[in-house]
Amino acid sequence: MTAAPGAGFVAFSQRWLARVETALRELLPPADMPPRTLHAAMHHAMFPGGKRLRPMLGLLGCSATGGDLERALRPSAALELLHTYSLVHDDLPCMDDDDLRRGRPTCHKVFGEAAALLAGDALLTLAFEGVAAGGAAAVATLARAAGCLGMVGGQMADLEAEGGAGERSLAAVRWIHDRKTGALITASLLVGALAGQRPGRAPLPDALRQMLGDYGDRLGRAFQIADDCLDLTGTAAELGKNPLADLAHDKLTWPAIVGLPASLRQAQELADAAVAMAPAIVFEAASWQQVPIDALDEARGLLQDAALYAVHRRS
Amino acid sequence: MTAAPGAGFVAFSQRWLARVETALRELLPPADMPPRTLHAAMHHAMFPGGKRLRPMLGLLGCSATGGDLERALRPSAALELLHTYSLVHDDLPCMDDDDLRRGRPTCHKVFGEAAALLAGDALLTLAFEGVAAGGAAAVATLARAAGCLGMVGGQMADLEAEGGAGERSLAAVRWIHDRKTGALITASLLVGALAGQRPGRAPLPDALRQMLGDYGDRLGRAFQIADDCLDLTGTAAELGKNPLADLAHDKLTWPAIVGLPASLRQAQELADAAVAMAPAIVFEAASWQQVPIDALDEARGLLQDAALYAVHRRS
Repeated sequence: MTAAPGAGFVAFSQRWLARVETALRELLPPADMPPRTLHAAMHHAMFPGGKRLRPMLGLLGCSATGGDLERALRPSAALELLHTYSLVHDDLPCMDDDDLRRGRPTCHKVFGEAAALLAGDALLTLAFEGVAAGGAAAVATLARAAGCLGMVGGQMADLEAEGGAGERSLAAVRWIHDRKTGALITASLLVGALAGQRPGRAPLPDALRQMLGDYGDRLGRAFQIADDCLDLTGTAAELGKNPLADLAHDKLTWPAIVGLPASLRQAQELADAAVAMAPAIVFEAASWQQVPIDALDEARGLLQDAALYAVHRRS
Repeated sequence: MTAAPGAGFVAFSQRWLARVETALRELLPPADMPPRTLHAAMHHAMFPGGKRLRPMLGLLGCSATGGDLERALRPSAALELLHTYSLVHDDLPCMDDDDLRRGRPTCHKVFGEAAALLAGDALLTLAFEGVAAGGAAAVATLARAAGCLGMVGGQMADLEAEGGAGERSLAAVRWIHDRKTGALITASLLVGALAGQRPGRAPLPDALRQMLGDYGDRLGRAFQIADDCLDLTGTAAELGKNPLADLAHDKLTWPAIVGLPASLRQAQELADAAVAMAPAIVFEAASWQQVPIDALDEARGLLQDAALYAVHRRS
């Protein structure tokens, strides 16, 4: 029996999931701590969670650079706080005005708009508290990727492009994809890599950082094109939300420009390009860490599986 | 001629204002960078600014601990990004629903709710990018003070207390004050102190950090009680907003519980307590930095003047 493409990354995620959940529960104040509405809203948004992809990418970035996964755990988990804040704010009435998220009522439907707004603000802030445990460079990397030149900028451009306004070109979609999703995917890998390094060592070499960033950019593009395709091909049960939602909002997506078959092919090409980069990344990491290349063999496989997972997942 | 109480801190602020403005303009992307609506909304919220109190408190915290003001400048300026995000989100329709801020239309009145929400998110994120230049400890300190156990928590409790709901006691007001305003005031001093320390030195001693924090807590309480009083005694020209706004919203304020005369007296007592702490703070800082106590004489005066300024200002 052949394993499904990306199975190694799925198994890695399943192995780490309980640890990530524990780290998240340690980061968040209890749901019944005053002000209760705020903390309950934060918990509602965070639990139960999904695949915790960004924390897993953080741990992958750590693993691929020979870092210490225990050190990277808390900062990596904190990436999910940042991702979740973006969902809570995206769902607000002045944004996408969504009532459901992962099959449950959205935060503002349960707790009201003010509490949802503040819960998002608090999750974003708490993300930086968690990532601070990984050092100032991890914080700066995440902030740059998540801010107006990254995720928030992509969100703004995505909103403006809705309903057919603005330029509808592949360049415009890529601009939005790279910022709205890609920036945080790449930053997750880098935050894990930076946070996992043992103290007293030389900082992560620029060349290695660059290679991991390039890998992340390809992974992020593949992931987001695949996401656009899933909106067209997935079922409500697989997605946990209604398919064709992008179409209903007249969102600017990859298949909206080049069609579904070309989109699927291009996502696979990007994933293949990411797969091809894995050996060079771990070679560079092994030289830097002065360990035999074999020590990073599992990490190489994980980098490759993560890229395949991005395009072969069904949710 | 006798100088007004707090004049030394006002003069210090005026001396640093242009540098802070320059640092803020360096932190923000240009207003016409895409996505233009987002960056224009961020600039609208940030410029022209007011007194930039929190950056000045950052520089004060640096000065009081014998730090390097040049090193503390950028992280201190970034505190204003965080303060401004909180104003932008507070003004939104689902929160205070304010049309005017410092005599100008609020961010969402000019750019719409979605852009204002995202501009606030981006300012908060950018604040952490700026503070990251001051090290991971500064980031963690700020995040803790600004999050659900600090400023955002205070904001939530303040909203819930509006319109006469909830407990109307002095303890409830103090709980809100300490979080909504006090936490960021204290964190500003600490961020400046942490960011201003020269590299390769021992970290800020816990005792000194604690003393500066205690000073900040008193300053913050004095500042917020004085603020509540200004809502009753100030003119629209002085405040840049309509007086009696707290009354109109039936906000839970200090004078609403103990009356105006007792509030004014208690604010002064808190300021006096802060003034009395200044010599011990600079003594501790001078011992740690191994400099003569005279070297921190100006800093001692500034700490005292900042406390007096908090209660004697007219805006």
